[in-house]
Amino acid sequence: MELPPALRWGKLPAMRDKLRHVTVIGVGLLGGSAALALKACDPSVRIAGVGRRRESLQMALDAGAIDTAHLDPAPAVVQSDLVILATPVGAFARHLREIAPHLRRGAAVTDVGSTKSAVVRQAERLLGAGGPFVGSHPMAGSEQKGVSFARADLFAGATCIVTPSTRTPPRLVRRIERFWQLLGTRTVRMGPAEHDRAVAAISHLPHVLASLLMLLPDSHSLQVAATGFRDATRLAGGDPEMWRDILLTNRRAILGALDRFDERLMHLRDLLEMGDARELEKLLTLAKKRRADTLLKEPVDRRLAAE
Amino acid sequence: MELPPALRWGKLPAMRDKLRHVTVIGVGLLGGSAALALKACDPSVRIAGVGRRRESLQMALDAGAIDTAHLDPAPAVVQSDLVILATPVGAFARHLREIAPHLRRGAAVTDVGSTKSAVVRQAERLLGAGGPFVGSHPMAGSEQKGVSFARADLFAGATCIVTPSTRTPPRLVRRIERFWQLLGTRTVRMGPAEHDRAVAAISHLPHVLASLLMLLPDSHSLQVAATGFRDATRLAGGDPEMWRDILLTNRRAILGALDRFDERLMHLRDLLEMGDARELEKLLTLAKKRRADTLLKEPVDRRLAAE
Repeated sequence: MELPPALRWGKLPAMRDKLRHVTVIGVGLLGGSAALALKACDPSVRIAGVGRRRESLQMALDAGAIDTAHLDPAPAVVQSDLVILATPVGAFARHLREIAPHLRRGAAVTDVGSTKSAVVRQAERLLGAGGPFVGSHPMAGSEQKGVSFARADLFAGATCIVTPSTRTPPRLVRRIERFWQLLGTRTVRMGPAEHDRAVAAISHLPHVLASLLMLLPDSHSLQVAATGFRDATRLAGGDPEMWRDILLTNRRAILGALDRFDERLMHLRDLLEMGDARELEKLLTLAKKRRADTLLKEPVDRRLAAE
Repeated sequence: MELPPALRWGKLPAMRDKLRHVTVIGVGLLGGSAALALKACDPSVRIAGVGRRRESLQMALDAGAIDTAHLDPAPAVVQSDLVILATPVGAFARHLREIAPHLRRGAAVTDVGSTKSAVVRQAERLLGAGGPFVGSHPMAGSEQKGVSFARADLFAGATCIVTPSTRTPPRLVRRIERFWQLLGTRTVRMGPAEHDRAVAAISHLPHVLASLLMLLPDSHSLQVAATGFRDATRLAGGDPEMWRDILLTNRRAILGALDRFDERLMHLRDLLEMGDARELEKLLTLAKKRRADTLLKEPVDRRLAAE
């Protein structure tokens, strides 16, 4: 297993005094992986896991991801330096209400949710606008669910978008960024609305297109589908319940991306209808070049996604 | 290197007397790979390569893919049992005209083009309707071009669609199917129009969507693109000139697929706009299930595509 860079680069001592107790609410793939990565960086950090199902909590205990298991978050967060929300976004409001009265002074709260405007607004209303919440979106994961797929190196090499609002104290933002860097991610800072527009275009709309594409061909045609179709539809393998929530919480930005996409699709339709060879080639060349210049030039994340 | 199954399964003797001389017109990735695969099955087969550029022909000679190199196809095809067209589809008409007067009695002609209705119609007009042409579409390849990327195992495990017309003699169809099976492909038979509709949905429309998707996000958003976006846009890395021709020769079927896709996209837009959680989850579940039941259950082609 590849260890998070913090351990390899000897960053550990600087972090130790800051993270003695951490609470992870939701010990699934992401929460469990964050816990394992923290433990790999510093075995002395104490991690409290909060969950709804005793079975998942027991698995997280058995995996060595958490030290204590709780059905009620209140006693878990009392002494935590950091609380990480790692349940589906739809449950955040409840958790924030539950933990608000019990957070200790100086604690930071972050999350791993895929949409940010609604989450940050909600968190600032429930916990206060000048902290302790800073939104995070680590761009890692897979089609797999649950703590049994959690790995200490899940975040290694991935990008994590940190989304302060205009009212978040800069020191708190840097603290959350350092936390994600410790886990091996490259951090990028964006406002919550900017984040939502970005992921609508690079993640949520692609997901929708993959699902629709998967449903388009008749069964006979599907028999001859090859690697190209498999790659183009890989995102359709995602968890439907989780993606339903992502689509709904970010629907404004997704509708915007969808409208811009559909406009381009209709333009391409016109080019095809007219048989405009020159413009078609121009468009294909532009897309190929942009991909080579961005995705292939400085690969953000070279790990192969598990299927 | 993995050898084509024919060699491993000992099918060789049955084939030897049928393929003594083969002509490959266009010694690029596909033509060169077909030649190398044939040579791997039977080193005694004589392969004539036809090309426009002396340099490519020399490379094919050096790679041991072909035995003789020709700028003019006429002398090459005179004694061939099989002629394979492996140039871009747009050049087929010229090649068919050039070889028509020189084909020997009993020779078969096939191709590796990605669209079939126009190709089969053209070939039957120029060579005759009761043979010797049978269209083929091996679903293999990569973003790479040229004989320097050719490999004897390029077709191993891939699917090859063989597209007889209603007038093609069954014996000729079986002969071409056996040829592709010898090279390691699984063959599927479809009519030319049926083929074009199928590949419009599973290959051509996905290509168009990938290119448009690659051009959608602004540069700042692209910086946080992860594996999901990279997979979803992989097809956009294809050769623009080749894909321009594919899109134009199959535009009727692609326009049909595009219209059906756009209808579904607008339906999904409505669901998002209305916030219809139930129907959204149903759609995502259906797509996930269909993918698991088809693409993942009986993997047609498990090789990782080169990037």
